[in-house]
Amino acid sequence: MAVERLVVVGGDAAGMSAASQARRLKGPAELEIVAFERGHFTSYSACGIPYWVGGEVGGRDELIARTPEEHRARGIDLRTRTEVVELDVAGRRVRSRDLESGAESWTGYDKLVLATGARPVRPKLPGIGAHGVHGVQSLDDGQRLVDDLERTRGRRAVVAGAGYIGVEMAEALVNRGFEVTVLHRGPQPMSTLDPDMGGLVHSAMNAMGIVTVADADVAKILTDEEGRARAVATADGREYPADVVVLGIGVEPRTALARAAGLPLGESGGLLTDLSMRVRGHEDIWAGGDCVEVLDLVAGRTRHIPLGTHANKHGQVIGSNAGGGYATFPGVVGTAVSKVCDLEIARTGLREKDAREAGLRYVTAAIRSTNTAGYYPGAREMTVKMLAERRTGRLLGVQIVGGAGSAKRVDIAAVALTAGMTVEQVVSLDLGYAPPFSPVWDPVLVAARKAVSAVRSAGV
Amino acid sequence: MAVERLVVVGGDAAGMSAASQARRLKGPAELEIVAFERGHFTSYSACGIPYWVGGEVGGRDELIARTPEEHRARGIDLRTRTEVVELDVAGRRVRSRDLESGAESWTGYDKLVLATGARPVRPKLPGIGAHGVHGVQSLDDGQRLVDDLERTRGRRAVVAGAGYIGVEMAEALVNRGFEVTVLHRGPQPMSTLDPDMGGLVHSAMNAMGIVTVADADVAKILTDEEGRARAVATADGREYPADVVVLGIGVEPRTALARAAGLPLGESGGLLTDLSMRVRGHEDIWAGGDCVEVLDLVAGRTRHIPLGTHANKHGQVIGSNAGGGYATFPGVVGTAVSKVCDLEIARTGLREKDAREAGLRYVTAAIRSTNTAGYYPGAREMTVKMLAERRTGRLLGVQIVGGAGSAKRVDIAAVALTAGMTVEQVVSLDLGYAPPFSPVWDPVLVAARKAVSAVRSAGV
Repeated sequence: MAVERLVVVGGDAAGMSAASQARRLKGPAELEIVAFERGHFTSYSACGIPYWVGGEVGGRDELIARTPEEHRARGIDLRTRTEVVELDVAGRRVRSRDLESGAESWTGYDKLVLATGARPVRPKLPGIGAHGVHGVQSLDDGQRLVDDLERTRGRRAVVAGAGYIGVEMAEALVNRGFEVTVLHRGPQPMSTLDPDMGGLVHSAMNAMGIVTVADADVAKILTDEEGRARAVATADGREYPADVVVLGIGVEPRTALARAAGLPLGESGGLLTDLSMRVRGHEDIWAGGDCVEVLDLVAGRTRHIPLGTHANKHGQVIGSNAGGGYATFPGVVGTAVSKVCDLEIARTGLREKDAREAGLRYVTAAIRSTNTAGYYPGAREMTVKMLAERRTGRLLGVQIVGGAGSAKRVDIAAVALTAGMTVEQVVSLDLGYAPPFSPVWDPVLVAARKAVSAVRSAGV
Repeated sequence: MAVERLVVVGGDAAGMSAASQARRLKGPAELEIVAFERGHFTSYSACGIPYWVGGEVGGRDELIARTPEEHRARGIDLRTRTEVVELDVAGRRVRSRDLESGAESWTGYDKLVLATGARPVRPKLPGIGAHGVHGVQSLDDGQRLVDDLERTRGRRAVVAGAGYIGVEMAEALVNRGFEVTVLHRGPQPMSTLDPDMGGLVHSAMNAMGIVTVADADVAKILTDEEGRARAVATADGREYPADVVVLGIGVEPRTALARAAGLPLGESGGLLTDLSMRVRGHEDIWAGGDCVEVLDLVAGRTRHIPLGTHANKHGQVIGSNAGGGYATFPGVVGTAVSKVCDLEIARTGLREKDAREAGLRYVTAAIRSTNTAGYYPGAREMTVKMLAERRTGRLLGVQIVGGAGSAKRVDIAAVALTAGMTVEQVVSLDLGYAPPFSPVWDPVLVAARKAVSAVRSAGV
């Protein structure tokens, strides 16, 4: 039997999980695996970068789950600092460039995995390319930022954007001794939450000394004579002095290669796949991780949701299929958790905005409770907001902000959303109770009770 | 319209939740509510007693959610220190005794709620009634124990039993400065877990200085000349000196009243109800809380599972129905959480023993992971054991022991059990991920992956 060749483009979570899983299923005698990675590193936790920057994680290498050498030792022909610059679908081959030497060559494939990830949004603004302006998407990005923070004498940082990355980077920079200003669009930080819930995050950020500026539209980066960022100017003419600027505006799928090759892309520019993570219409090309759109099971559409946990699952599924097995990725419900200082932040399912966009009518219920029995020492506030569909009472989404135990509580709702439960069914769930862990009515259940009332009051 | 009378027997979680909910739905002009309670207190958290004994909760009153006076102010005719001693179902009346004066009287009812709770198992052993031997089921029990601990000069405590109550009381007594020995049946403490998981609890208890004695069969309590406990003797003739003895052997439904009245009881002695919490075959009698058996949805049978969280839900359902509304309690999946020191302990669904008793064939999978990303500071071990049905792969149960975040993670499985998910479906769940809260593959998902393999290997 001829040896097949699997080519993997991108050496982080999705790509190397796929390569590793395929290798588990098929040995080198059956399957040759070649993986290309632009950067220096493989299989790292990009989500851990804020904690490395903030000094909670000792060093870069702790974020690396598996080094290039370890992958090679497992029979994967991994080529780092090598960028794939062209995909020839008809010819079943990719053209790659050695980023050190500039040398290029073509590599043929029988099976292809695209795991090219995402890149930070860099709006085309004056000065956006200046020294001192950083994205934090890859470990190479993180290393450049850490090096810069160590060199720079100034102590003023501006973070553009207040989504997960922006908020986590703001905290990290505070922990590193910077004065931090966060410029964000909209009325509240954390626009992945509804504004009423984002307001709670706002207060917590201010309490830790972070300045937040609402409705801020970044217009340009002002630079000094050496071409280094010195301030961020917003559209209303205000200037925010900055010795370092971190872009947390969001990321976009890195799919120029796929686009040029004519592969199907969604509205976000992410690749579109079937349930086995195969690129739609292409028998032998799979794609996963931050370069694809995933099916949002609650909204009933695909979305770009770049998260390491999805990327790892995609890789596992792709590797199983490319290795001759069978697996699927059924979709997501939109779960995400984070924290700022000791305030935990979580969401799953739809925000109000998402529900409207999905064409759903809904009611909301928000409640305040505590993370433990109220009398238990150290009890902290927990706020839970729930969305339910009008008429049917189907659970549509949950947002939680509060003390310890708030973030992962959202998993209860994530499972209930997956199962299509109504809020009435949620009320009856048999959740763990003991005074150190929950009030006798878990806050999620209290929110569900209120949502049941809201559904009834709203009628049909 | 004539005023109906609702009589409630038992003034803790189930009874007073029922009374309060009925009062919300119907005012005093429509419904008279009379509630009888043997003790001094109402609506308290019995689950909080170990934390009060251990000194973490400041005082008894913090455990009381609503005092008798507060209930009375809401239009409930609450009679404390008054025990119902006879139920006349045909005559629709109860006979009660004032425990202070001894006076008795009959009270008629249109609707009746039985919420008589549970009582600590007190095997008929020599000395079991001695001074210094304590159950910890009611707030009155807790008060007697706390008073005794304050008076007694000795510092040696023996806890009989190592279920939730035994383990929590052992920790409480250590926190209070006692030398604690726990005598338990079987090979490991925490028999609510499989022995392999109980072994982890065993180690943690020993590490905090608690002596545990396996396969210990308590035979008698030895007393001094004043009739006070001085040691516990086991069947094998060993003696364990004790200045105070706490019974954590378990509790049994307090249903002598119901039994005498001919109401239907299950194998445990708990009352049997329908899904609206009505006593089977009795139109106008409801029962809830620790005196009933609940439907275990996974095992497919009723069981006695005395937990405050169920009692509160029962009360809510009963009050809705007795107040002219409609609600049901569909059953439980067997979720319970606890902790010993900073080791969290959780279970839901079936243990191996339960699965065998239920006639199910199963496979198991156990994994070790961490409660946060492995590189995140303070990462702690988490062990997850999963049971899945052979052939179908249906999730049957999960047990978790580990650091912070272990206990409430069991809720993921509790919801999945309720939804009847397979372990393959569990693998695809969209759970919250960020480095401070989880590895990129949540430990529950890792266990599910292993369980999927186990199901496949086991074949049909």
